[in-house]
Amino acid sequence: MTDQLRLAVIGASGYTGGELLRLLSLHPKVKICQVVASSKSEGLSVSSLLPNLSKIIDVQLSPLDVPTIAKEVDLVFLSLPHTQSLEPVADFLSHKKLVIDLSADYRIQDPQVYKQWYQTTHSHPDLLKKAVYGLPELHRSAIRKSQLVAVPGCYPTVAILQLAPFIVQNLIEPTSIIIDAKSGVSGGGRSPAIGFHFPESHEAIHAYKIGAHRHLPEIEQGLNQLISASDKRTSAPLSLMFTPHLIPINRGILSTAYASLKSDIEPLKMNDVYHQFYQDEPFIRIFPKAETVNPRNLRGANFCDLSYTYDPRTSHIISSGAIDNLVKGAAGQAIQCMNLMVGFPETLGLTGPGLFP
Amino acid sequence: MTDQLRLAVIGASGYTGGELLRLLSLHPKVKICQVVASSKSEGLSVSSLLPNLSKIIDVQLSPLDVPTIAKEVDLVFLSLPHTQSLEPVADFLSHKKLVIDLSADYRIQDPQVYKQWYQTTHSHPDLLKKAVYGLPELHRSAIRKSQLVAVPGCYPTVAILQLAPFIVQNLIEPTSIIIDAKSGVSGGGRSPAIGFHFPESHEAIHAYKIGAHRHLPEIEQGLNQLISASDKRTSAPLSLMFTPHLIPINRGILSTAYASLKSDIEPLKMNDVYHQFYQDEPFIRIFPKAETVNPRNLRGANFCDLSYTYDPRTSHIISSGAIDNLVKGAAGQAIQCMNLMVGFPETLGLTGPGLFP
Amino acid sequence: MTDQLRLAVIGASGYTGGELLRLLSLHPKVKICQVVASSKSEGLSVSSLLPNLSKIIDVQLSPLDVPTIAKEVDLVFLSLPHTQSLEPVADFLSHKKLVIDLSADYRIQDPQVYKQWYQTTHSHPDLLKKAVYGLPELHRSAIRKSQLVAVPGCYPTVAILQLAPFIVQNLIEPTSIIIDAKSGVSGGGRSPAIGFHFPESHEAIHAYKIGAHRHLPEIEQGLNQLISASDKRTSAPLSLMFTPHLIPINRGILSTAYASLKSDIEPLKMNDVYHQFYQDEPFIRIFPKAETVNPRNLRGANFCDLSYTYDPRTSHIISSGAIDNLVKGAAGQAIQCMNLMVGFPETLGLTGPGLFP
Amino acid sequence: MTDQLRLAVIGASGYTGGELLRLLSLHPKVKICQVVASSKSEGLSVSSLLPNLSKIIDVQLSPLDVPTIAKEVDLVFLSLPHTQSLEPVADFLSHKKLVIDLSADYRIQDPQVYKQWYQTTHSHPDLLKKAVYGLPELHRSAIRKSQLVAVPGCYPTVAILQLAPFIVQNLIEPTSIIIDAKSGVSGGGRSPAIGFHFPESHEAIHAYKIGAHRHLPEIEQGLNQLISASDKRTSAPLSLMFTPHLIPINRGILSTAYASLKSDIEPLKMNDVYHQFYQDEPFIRIFPKAETVNPRNLRGANFCDLSYTYDPRTSHIISSGAIDNLVKGAAGQAIQCMNLMVGFPETLGLTGPGLFP
Repeated sequence: MTDQLRLAVIGASGYTGGELLRLLSLHPKVKICQVVASSKSEGLSVSSLLPNLSKIIDVQLSPLDVPTIAKEVDLVFLSLPHTQSLEPVADFLSHKKLVIDLSADYRIQDPQVYKQWYQTTHSHPDLLKKAVYGLPELHRSAIRKSQLVAVPGCYPTVAILQLAPFIVQNLIEPTSIIIDAKSGVSGGGRSPAIGFHFPESHEAIHAYKIGAHRHLPEIEQGLNQLISASDKRTSAPLSLMFTPHLIPINRGILSTAYASLKSDIEPLKMNDVYHQFYQDEPFIRIFPKAETVNPRNLRGANFCDLSYTYDPRTSHIISSGAIDNLVKGAAGQAIQCMNLMVGFPETLGLTGPGLFP
Repeated sequence: MTDQLRLAVIGASGYTGGELLRLLSLHPKVKICQVVASSKSEGLSVSSLLPNLSKIIDVQLSPLDVPTIAKEVDLVFLSLPHTQSLEPVADFLSHKKLVIDLSADYRIQDPQVYKQWYQTTHSHPDLLKKAVYGLPELHRSAIRKSQLVAVPGCYPTVAILQLAPFIVQNLIEPTSIIIDAKSGVSGGGRSPAIGFHFPESHEAIHAYKIGAHRHLPEIEQGLNQLISASDKRTSAPLSLMFTPHLIPINRGILSTAYASLKSDIEPLKMNDVYHQFYQDEPFIRIFPKAETVNPRNLRGANFCDLSYTYDPRTSHIISSGAIDNLVKGAAGQAIQCMNLMVGFPETLGLTGPGLFP
Repeated sequence: MTDQLRLAVIGASGYTGGELLRLLSLHPKVKICQVVASSKSEGLSVSSLLPNLSKIIDVQLSPLDVPTIAKEVDLVFLSLPHTQSLEPVADFLSHKKLVIDLSADYRIQDPQVYKQWYQTTHSHPDLLKKAVYGLPELHRSAIRKSQLVAVPGCYPTVAILQLAPFIVQNLIEPTSIIIDAKSGVSGGGRSPAIGFHFPESHEAIHAYKIGAHRHLPEIEQGLNQLISASDKRTSAPLSLMFTPHLIPINRGILSTAYASLKSDIEPLKMNDVYHQFYQDEPFIRIFPKAETVNPRNLRGANFCDLSYTYDPRTSHIISSGAIDNLVKGAAGQAIQCMNLMVGFPETLGLTGPGLFP
Repeated sequence: MTDQLRLAVIGASGYTGGELLRLLSLHPKVKICQVVASSKSEGLSVSSLLPNLSKIIDVQLSPLDVPTIAKEVDLVFLSLPHTQSLEPVADFLSHKKLVIDLSADYRIQDPQVYKQWYQTTHSHPDLLKKAVYGLPELHRSAIRKSQLVAVPGCYPTVAILQLAPFIVQNLIEPTSIIIDAKSGVSGGGRSPAIGFHFPESHEAIHAYKIGAHRHLPEIEQGLNQLISASDKRTSAPLSLMFTPHLIPINRGILSTAYASLKSDIEPLKMNDVYHQFYQDEPFIRIFPKAETVNPRNLRGANFCDLSYTYDPRTSHIISSGAIDNLVKGAAGQAIQCMNLMVGFPETLGLTGPGLFP
């Protein structure tokens, strides 16, 4: 037991924090030492908030006291609402702790863009340069060396992964991308609100924040990083449309992305490109049929399932991507980053299959 | 009672047939005289198939015997699987009955296109010229004079209605249209199949028949009819992408349509165009916010709810459209056509609000 | 139009108030003159709260100003949270208005029992004597003559209706009754709360308030009223167990009731008793098979669907009863009472079938 | 790898077979050597039936050839429809294999009772004597020594576990037991049928097979085995009522059981009895509040969650019990039995928490 990584999980009252605890309970090399939820739950047991963890995790909820926590743990997961991570991240870093932040606070590299979309001046722009965007399939080596990882948002995770092969290989027009994404309700968090009240969201579906969702600049940043300097010189700058929808499922995102093929690309060649791009990735599964890409096949699992279709009538590719928003879109990906940061095998504790049905 | 329109409903074992009976029971000027379901249900009561109609509709199920039915009714609704309407439609027309067909058999005007998508040679290409496409908001006067109405498919109804103002006014690029549509499971019919088995489709979402759904040529035909001759000369021919998705709700379609604005169009002008286009339509509701366009607001109602957003970053419009696939997308629209064909007020029996929640 | 009944609906921000408006929009003899929601929504349109009523009901929301409302209407529906109806009911009665109250405030005849279960001293115990319990199938003539009707709770409606034939005929042991009821989430109201947050209540079911739900004394009172004086002398006093459950559907209650047959009763005779008891009731439907008793068959309809099974192994009857909690369990039943109070045909405006699927 | 238990799973096309594979993939001491589904899927990969297992289980589907399978494995799980296990169980036993049967074929000890409820003459009544009922909490030592385990049905698992403390201690009247159980749709299997078609079972609930479900004699047998000989002499024979309901969730059973306390029992003493009875059981969790007993807290987990309430008004106990019907109600329990049969730690591979939300 002495060689176990000692962890703190800050933000256990939300679904992402709860999922972190669930997944960490399956990890053979970690010990959950400190769990922080809201101030009103201090002293309660974890299972009073999360009865699914009864008889599994037996830890009392602590206050968010950085020095005390820093003394007892090696690595800290922060799963707080946006803007509330700004200070604790800096504090834990100053205590030389490894930090994995699941909020958006350290994802956007340009503090002006952060301010524009989050209505808050970033208080630690210097730390933004140290933060690594925690998408292992695309930034594995940087994550390995990092002290601070900003875990991607749920929509950006699937959108970037589903489009990366086309972007990296310069196959699609960078101004033609449309992402029509559908998310389950857990993506909205655990705080009751009329939009997530059962009778309002059951048997219902709607678009929201069209062209105005905070994940839009994150997706653009993530894809832009993949364009080579030479391609940037010859193409129009990438600019995409993003329409999220709320659908009546608990977990899961299905993202349908559209883009027009560059005119000089041979459609048949694309298939090889797509498969080769991810052929060694343990958490990417590529299916021949779009019908199989379905959140139901990865409930609770860390996979990103992908497929793409070429439509010769319109010279477009249509990519289907699915993840569990709480796993590959948040807690699972955070643990995948942790494994990389501390030198564990990347898939350790994350190989469980999805729950079907 | 003697001035009531006498009706037959053929195909009561499906959801569309059942919805026709439900809506007709609310209509003050009709009498349901003959109901036909499958051969194995002959002699049973309607409510044995549809317990929701117990104490409401008290008719025995009959065999599909055209001469007998033709003697007793003025107008026939056919709600049969595709290709099975070809002959009965012709038979009822030869008996001088008004016919409203809810299958796809008389929707596609070009028999070659029909053959390509339905794998069947059309046996009555001559009747295709007499068939009117039953979308009253766009073809009202033709429906009034018609003997045979082909009721549009569910996806085409919402897709055509949501894009018509832009197409008619020549505001969007005809090759830029992408329709990402999401349908509830009743759209798949009442026959059990693995894809609609509860544990397979609950907590699940997937795309299907990408670029290959039979409603694609129907949408293209419907939009092409709206382009003026002069616009056709100056624009590329319309060609669109259509991706249907299955979502875990019983009823309803949400369709999200994307198109790029023609470069010479003033975005601010569009709003007026959109509102004016439908300002006198009793069954079109335009909402300022896309969030309000949601199948939950029109469960059981004949409305088509619309909204659109202009995205200045990408010069695209994003249109949201919602209908109840069984009502405005099938049975309600059929009754709206019936009202026009026989001279009833167009909204008679169709003014009930949606069931919320 | 001048012969239309002028109405006020107080409490339109809840699901029951919304359902009242929906059903009243289908009623040919009423005019909705005043609608009151919460104070923060004054001046808004009804459809801003209830988009399903767009283009259907075009009334502005007013403040709860009793004298003003009393001047403009003949009858008032109150659909306020429990204890908040106490004063407005008295006020409207003092203005000589007909009052139909959908809260529990005037249901319990004994003010001590009211105080025990609602933790509030009843401020108008004298009015309790004037209040009639609005279950038309059992109290029709009293409702006709009443000025104040207390509409039954949703669970009591189905529980009393499903057991009444056995109680009235003295067929079952009055201490053996167990009611295991399952309700959809709209029964919990429209205010967001963690227990009704989508990810908490979807894919979930639990019992709650076992033996402690406020509908328990209401069911006991309702059934006790049906026992004849002579039967009361010879039987133990009725005392029952009631276990409500929350299930992941929007609308509907299924109630499964158990009771042991009195030893001298001939099981075969029961069937006649059951059918005869309700044979002339327009809103009671009796099905031979329990499987058919299902809220899905009466979504939005005013029916109560019933079935019962006799189990010879244990000499028990098992009764299945289903209603739409917002219709026969609230708004529909309120309108049924209104029809009786003002002399309209009892079923006027209430004959619409349920929405299936 | 050489010390791993070699397994066959027969019946992978059903949900229980799929769940066995999912759970076995998490078990550190087994190797899945042979998987059999339907004959038409021979040669396909497991993941073609179960895409959730892509990249997890890479085995080809084999025909049900007993000698071949027997050569390659140590233990066989059979998850076939009822009556189809009769012969293969006998065949594998004759090859000296350990057998765990998940059908009902070897659960009922009296072949006459089996014939009455399953309409089939039992072809191996001699083997019934060797079969052990696989409920480890109550039959642990017999399972350890057994060659053939009959895994209990889903409803009987929770019903017997929730009532066992009261029965063993002789606290309740054996003729007063009523079990009102609610099951998700996966309990009905993976074959499409109208009753499990999404639009028929979504937003719906109904009772079925009241007093006639095949799990009734199994529950009675299971509880009768717990009554001591002396108690049997002094009490009426146990006879219970069982009403299953279908609810619109994928996984999970909630069972609400009612029984009247024997007149000489001190209610306060019961609490100790209940907690002591299960205090060392790793898979039983007892909660103080019935609200917490909810299938949502054990999705995919092997727990049985319990609570009970004493109602002083009626001297009844009301017990709430929840399981995942595919795990503790089938595949998980089967693996728990396997662990006992071969001497592994009982909880090995089964300690994963439930997926919430």
